[in-house]
This record gives sequence, C-alpha cells and structure tokens, in this order.
Amino acid sequence: MFPPMNIPTFNITPALSNLDSKLKQLIDNKTKPIGALGYLESIAFKIGRIQHTLTPTLLNPHIVVFAGDHGISNSGVSAYPQEVTYQMVLNFLNNGAAINVFTNQHNIDLTVVDAGVNHDFGTISDTRFVSKKIGMGTRNYLEAPAMTQDELAQAISAGAEICAQIHKKGSNIIGFGEMGIGNTSSASLIMSTLLQLPLEQCVGAGTGLDTIGIQKKRTILQTVLDVHSLNTSDPLNIMQIVGGYELAMMLGAFLKAGELKMLILVDGFIASATFLCAKLLSPAISDYALFTHCSHESGHALLLEECAQTPILDLQLRLGEGTGCALSYPIIDSAIRFFNEMASFESAKVDKKIDEERT
Amino acid sequence: MFPPMNIPTFNITPALSNLDSKLKQLIDNKTKPIGALGYLESIAFKIGRIQHTLTPTLLNPHIVVFAGDHGISNSGVSAYPQEVTYQMVLNFLNNGAAINVFTNQHNIDLTVVDAGVNHDFGTISDTRFVSKKIGMGTRNYLEAPAMTQDELAQAISAGAEICAQIHKKGSNIIGFGEMGIGNTSSASLIMSTLLQLPLEQCVGAGTGLDTIGIQKKRTILQTVLDVHSLNTSDPLNIMQIVGGYELAMMLGAFLKAGELKMLILVDGFIASATFLCAKLLSPAISDYALFTHCSHESGHALLLEECAQTPILDLQLRLGEGTGCALSYPIIDSAIRFFNEMASFESAKVDKKIDEERT
Repeated sequence: MFPPMNIPTFNITPALSNLDSKLKQLIDNKTKPIGALGYLESIAFKIGRIQHTLTPTLLNPHIVVFAGDHGISNSGVSAYPQEVTYQMVLNFLNNGAAINVFTNQHNIDLTVVDAGVNHDFGTISDTRFVSKKIGMGTRNYLEAPAMTQDELAQAISAGAEICAQIHKKGSNIIGFGEMGIGNTSSASLIMSTLLQLPLEQCVGAGTGLDTIGIQKKRTILQTVLDVHSLNTSDPLNIMQIVGGYELAMMLGAFLKAGELKMLILVDGFIASATFLCAKLLSPAISDYALFTHCSHESGHALLLEECAQTPILDLQLRLGEGTGCALSYPIIDSAIRFFNEMASFESAKVDKKIDEERT
Repeated sequence: MFPPMNIPTFNITPALSNLDSKLKQLIDNKTKPIGALGYLESIAFKIGRIQHTLTPTLLNPHIVVFAGDHGISNSGVSAYPQEVTYQMVLNFLNNGAAINVFTNQHNIDLTVVDAGVNHDFGTISDTRFVSKKIGMGTRNYLEAPAMTQDELAQAISAGAEICAQIHKKGSNIIGFGEMGIGNTSSASLIMSTLLQLPLEQCVGAGTGLDTIGIQKKRTILQTVLDVHSLNTSDPLNIMQIVGGYELAMMLGAFLKAGELKMLILVDGFIASATFLCAKLLSPAISDYALFTHCSHESGHALLLEECAQTPILDLQLRLGEGTGCALSYPIIDSAIRFFNEMASFESAKVDKKIDEERT
C-alpha cells in the first residue's frame, strides 16, 4: 500500500498559469533591456505565479531549523561528535550561530525544532523552540531501519503542523534548515537510491572529513545499501529506513507548504535531498520552490542538475541550518521590489530598442 | 612619457598583512566547520585586512553611477538609441530604475554623475546629481580618438574628486556603475587590447543585439583596432582612444578609492574592464576590490578569469548601473556580521572536530 494508511497525504495543485503573459509583459516593460535582470526576472515571475497576483509580496518570512540525531553518527561517518547537535540547538537559542546572524540581519523569524535530538532539553521557555521529539535519535541503520513507519508518520504530521501554524500567523515564504550530526549520510543515501546514482557521486566530506574519512563513509554507506532491501521508487520507504527524524519532519513541512501555496526556500544538500522525496510524492511542489544555493558539499551540484534547478547563490557554503535560505532572502526581495517599484518605458519616457528598420 | 604629466597619479599601497593569522583564527573558531561559510569567510578576511582591524564595519555604503555618451553609438554597435543615456539619467533621478530600487532596499547612498552625456540637463537641484560634463559625448573612435589627453586627465581628476568627497563624508565602501549607450564597445576594446585577446572573445550582445548585430559590432570594432595605432601596454592610451568619459571618470574614482583604502565594489563587464586599467596602473588596488557578480555579457566570465577574481553573485545580470554592487551588498554585510557576531566554540560550549585518536 502506497502511501501507507497512517502517513498523511497532501493535495498540492500546480500554480495557476493564467497570469503568465501579463507577468511577462510587466517584467519586459521595465526600464531595462529585456532579460537584463537575469534570474531576478524568473524569481519575480515565479512568485507572481505562486501568489496569482500582479502585486506579489513577501510576508513574515520564516525559517525553521529541524534538529535530530542519527544512530549512524557513532559509526564513523562524521567529523564531529553527536553531542554537537544538541550543543548547536542551544547555540541557536543563544543567538550564537550563523543562522541567527543572518535571520536577524533580514528580520526573518526563526523556529528551532527538536525533531529527535539525543538530549533532554528540560523546559525551555524560548518561544522559538518547539519540541516535537520523536525519539532520542534514530536507530543506526547499519542494524535496523532508522525509524518505524509510525515514527515516520508522526514526524511528517509534526512538520506539517509546524508549517501550518506559521502560515496561519501570516507568513507566505518559508525556508527549512537542519542540524544533525550524521545527516549528510541520510541525504547521500536518499539521493543515491531515488536517483539511481552510484554512491561515490553522492557522498562528500559533510562537516569536514578528509579523503580517508570520505572513503570510510562511502564504505559504511555501501554496507547500509547491502543490508536493506530498499524500494527505490518509494521515497517514504527510503526516508523510513535511511532518513532522519529532522528530515522526515522537514518532508512533512515541505509538503504542507506546497499544499498551502507558500513560497518554499530549499537550503543545501540535505534539504534538497529531502525536497527530492517531496517532489517524487507530489511533482507540483516544484512550482512553489526556489533553490537558494549550490552547496560546496560534493553531490549537491549533481542533485540540483538532476532536479533541473538553478540555485540563487553559489558561495561554497556547506553549513546547513537554513543559512542558504537566509542569505538568498535579500535577492528574492530584490526580485519582488524591481517588479513592484521599477518604472516602465512609458512612465519614465525612455526610448525602446531600435526597431528593425533603423538598424 | 608614461604617465603623461597632466594625468594625476595615485599612491596605492598594499593592504597590511600583519593581522592575517589573527583574522583567520577568529574565522576558524566560529561555531561552524572550518571553511563552511565558503566565500563569506574570504570576504570577511579581506575586509578585516583592508580596514586593518579585528572589528571590521561597513560605513555609509555609496554607489556612484557615471553616465556618458559615445560617438560610436550612432555607428550601429547598440540595440538602443543614444537618447536612452540621458533618459535613464532622468529615470535615476526619478527613482524609476533598477539601481534606485536596490540602493533604496539596502540604504545605499546614490550619486549620479554626468560625465559627458549628449544632453543639456539645465539646472538640476537634486543633490544626488553631480555635473562633471567633459563634453557632449566622446568623438566617434572610428574617426578620431574618443577624447583628448586633456579630457582624459580632467575625467580622471573629476572621478577622484567625487570619490574623495564621499570618503570625506564617512564612507568606507564604494561601488561604481555606469550608464552609456555604446559603452560595452569601449569595454570590449579595452579588454581585447590590454589582455591581447581576439575581439570575438570580448564582444557580446550589450543591451541586446541579435547574432547578426553582434557580428556587425565585431566588424566595426575590428575596424577601430585597424584605424588606430594603440599602445597595448598603456591603459591610459587605450582609455583615451577607445574609452568613454564615464569610464575614464570611473578609473579616477577606482584609483582614488584604492589610495584611500576604501572597500571597492566592482560591478559588471564595463566596470571590470575599467578596473583592469586601474589594476595595470596600480596592481595593489586588487587588495581593496570585490567583484560583485559575473555578468551575462559575453566576455565577462573570461575577463574575471584573466583577473583571477571570484564574483560574489552569478545571476545572469547584464544591466550595469551598479546593480551588481547593490545586489551583492547584503552578502558582504553578512560576511561582516558573521565575523563580528557569531559565537566561538569556546563561548558557545560546542565540541570541536573529533581528533585523530577518536576517528
């Protein structure tokens, strides 16, 4: 049965196209050569389409960072110890991390979700913190599926609920980040299985493994593929067996954001692999998504290529946390602003291109 | 005689390197894997070096758009009529252009300079407008040098003076844009001659020529090279003969900004070709410059490569006006902010990378 009964389903409909020609006309008639604002023009067009309006706006931008631990992390796939996951969650709440700096810079709201960190956070009164702990980290998928089907369903529902709450408060643009030592391994396995690509094209340094470390990680992940009988046409099966709580929750949030026709910002390698699951479940979600950057993590460029996506930034980032979403936000805002604020050739009394006769 | 007596000279000294190791240490000790903020780390390092401080700041960011007309523009090298130059200057002053939108978005001050537009602007009271008109457009360099040596000297002095005034008012970061129908032709000729590259690698569509138009432009520019006896090792000679008033003025502004140790933002193809002249005159200027984007104008990617420069953005822009400078500003600001605001591993009590024994 696909999808299984207890997994929530989402109704994502394609963005409407009946304003397309009017949107294009408005963009082409701004005081600039046609196409001269490059990718900004595509972004403005896409958002006008999503919002089905000729006066698009960005309301209450929000980034959600899902944090979770991974049983595999103690098997030598990461350069950092598992404790860093919970320590970084506390760092987020203390405003010390990169994502804090960039969300503060751009007035983006931040929510930090404990999706399944291997740490007891006790009571945290910070309203940015949401506890949706599915477990104290996933099982080591060298030995057993990372999570049960019930846990997968719980995580997807929780992610969807978080997204719906943010939408309810008036946000129409949402980005998702993650924190979880070991989670590039999940992303590599998801990419390799769903796109049927050899592991070596999907596995990179993560937080900073050296060449020998990457080789070891590849060997371990190959063993994972050998251990399990995976249904490579079923993203939910893949997510359950080799995913993570934070990724499953992000998957639910992606799908809900698509259903709610929000503008979705996809961060780096791990978020893109999770988005791939969402896209295979509901292809129309691509109408709502912008890929914010090309990560330096080996595999991401190929993943973007396979998804036929152009990233906004290419700054050699490999940090996660939603930092690519936050850093690309002002560029997306620029796209909306040129669309709404620039003069037209007529209003500014600027001559148009020389016609065929005159050249 | 090189440089000629009446051309002002500038004393650009290399950025000091004695804080380099301390800057690197501070960057590496932020709560992120080493190198994970990619190009933002290089930007923060460069600015710390320029400002010779461990607490870099961006003060009163400013973009200057130099406008000028070109005698060559009536010979079929552009898709737009010459009148667009003055019309766009008025559009800048009416806040209707892309550069207005992006400078307003980021609170960047804007100055618009008439370096030699073929239009009588009369009296303009807008304090953002500066009249430094050298002439009513350059001569058509198919027939004569674009400007005299005296005009070149005047333009360089005027650009330097404008930059010095802005510095005096407390700015430490400055970007330069241009507006001038026909000025990609100057940029292509500068690039081709100074880098000794064949014209076909340096000539593109400009504001939007089609394939036949580009071929015609190449043929015309080849004729220009055949007509003049150019000293390809002398950027001042090249600027005088095939440059433009707005480019010569930008050259003076670049050189003054380097002398004043300001952070310099280089815009697209035309600004980069002008920067190339500055760099050949004073190689140390590269210590102070960030290349803000890779333009879609054919030739810019190669020009950046030849200058060994990594652009911040690659958004397929081809508009000029300093738009790349404005759009990249928030990214540069992010670099400064992560450097000044992020927690260190010690302050946030986050574990460092697993050491050799533990892996």
